Amino acid sequence: MQIRQLFDPESSTFSYLVWDNSTREAALIDPVQSQVHRDIQLIRELRLILKYTLETHVHADHVTGSGVLRQKLNSIVVVHEDSQTKCADVQIKGGDFIPLGTKRINVINTPGHTNSDISYLVNGAVFTGDSLLIRGCGRTDFQSGNASLLYQSVRQQLFTLPGDTLVYPGHDYKGRCCSTIAEEMAHNPRLGLDKSLDDFVDIMSNLKLAPPKHIHEALPSNLRCGVSGKDTAITRL
Amino acid sequence: MQIRQLFDPESSTFSYLVWDNSTREAALIDPVQSQVHRDIQLIRELRLILKYTLETHVHADHVTGSGVLRQKLNSIVVVHEDSQTKCADVQIKGGDFIPLGTKRINVINTPGHTNSDISYLVNGAVFTGDSLLIRGCGRTDFQSGNASLLYQSVRQQLFTLPGDTLVYPGHDYKGRCCSTIAEEMAHNPRLGLDKSLDDFVDIMSNLKLAPPKHIHEALPSNLRCGVSGKDTAITRL
Repeated sequence: MQIRQLFDPESSTFSYLVWDNSTREAALIDPVQSQVHRDIQLIRELRLILKYTLETHVHADHVTGSGVLRQKLNSIVVVHEDSQTKCADVQIKGGDFIPLGTKRINVINTPGHTNSDISYLVNGAVFTGDSLLIRGCGRTDFQSGNASLLYQSVRQQLFTLPGDTLVYPGHDYKGRCCSTIAEEMAHNPRLGLDKSLDDFVDIMSNLKLAPPKHIHEALPSNLRCGVSGKDTAITRL
Repeated sequence: MQIRQLFDPESSTFSYLVWDNSTREAALIDPVQSQVHRDIQLIRELRLILKYTLETHVHADHVTGSGVLRQKLNSIVVVHEDSQTKCADVQIKGGDFIPLGTKRINVINTPGHTNSDISYLVNGAVFTGDSLLIRGCGRTDFQSGNASLLYQSVRQQLFTLPGDTLVYPGHDYKGRCCSTIAEEMAHNPRLGLDKSLDDFVDIMSNLKLAPPKHIHEALPSNLRCGVSGKDTAITRL
């Protein structure tokens, strides 16, 4: 399985193109609408077939490219079953796996940043969305966020993966590309092994962050896959 | 050999931390001075010994972190022998190799963006500085740049590497992380296989780019490794 990291500087969002080299089938994790032109060009140049777009959660800081990519490349929009994203084609939940060529992508429920976060596990790499960032994590103060639940997700779901599992986050604001589970266990200042649940809840309660700049456009738009139009008939994987 | 990509958003510069997992010896390719604090923290968290800083060329768009890293971590400043960087500890040239733990880094001369560009080849990945960018290349209109020479460097040195060699460039301005030799041979709009030397020279002669914003500070500063002080005694590897 091949991985190509892509970055949107405006929202500091990472997208990830993941593909099976033998069949050329690909999935794009967390596509950003303003980068769709770049991403389609890359998909074409690499001679890939975009089978899925996979969301880690309903984003508040950028508009998803999933709907536009479906229109242009006929890809399948995949979201968590609790995400209220009625425009999607397929709903998934923790424990499911997504077939991609001769490989599979494992779905892990990691709620807490929102009520319906997913991490995707592929071949020794985990795409953690905003559940686990490099030396940080997503905020828990809106979109049904819940600090206790996020602590549990990271500690019981992500920190039980092998230590050398590569962590590919949904964002980074300091120019870092990735981490490993072992690094985050040792050095994450919020969720590292030296932090208790009470420590974490206390940290998250005192962040005093301003709302994301684009939340009022991004949330309703993302519940429509970033495009206007009718709801689709949702199936299960 | 492990690779960690790092980004400086102000100058869109990539640095690369490369290390041998068995000995923990590391090299930092193209460190950026304004990111030295971040980089030292990462080096310490990963329990690495920074043995070298490796420059791909004398940069015009940012100040190197090599001198500060030498002061703080006792690393060896490595540059090309033709770079006029008198503050360096070690001079190298194409054909040399740099031992790193149980591995080695191969040095390839790829001049043309400046008169003394180096690419570093490590375990199926090549760090190309500004000689080869993703779907582009560095400019050739100052610092002894020479479009014909750059064409020759890319075609004869880089495009003769295996097609699946990962290309890690010195910059990207569109949120892309890396490429492969095969991709650039097929899709680089300046240097792809469909472009002749005359095509390339013509393209490079007509870019009409403004000078880099920080060239007047960066160039003289980088010839002093980004710090003031006496020249060091230069040795050969």
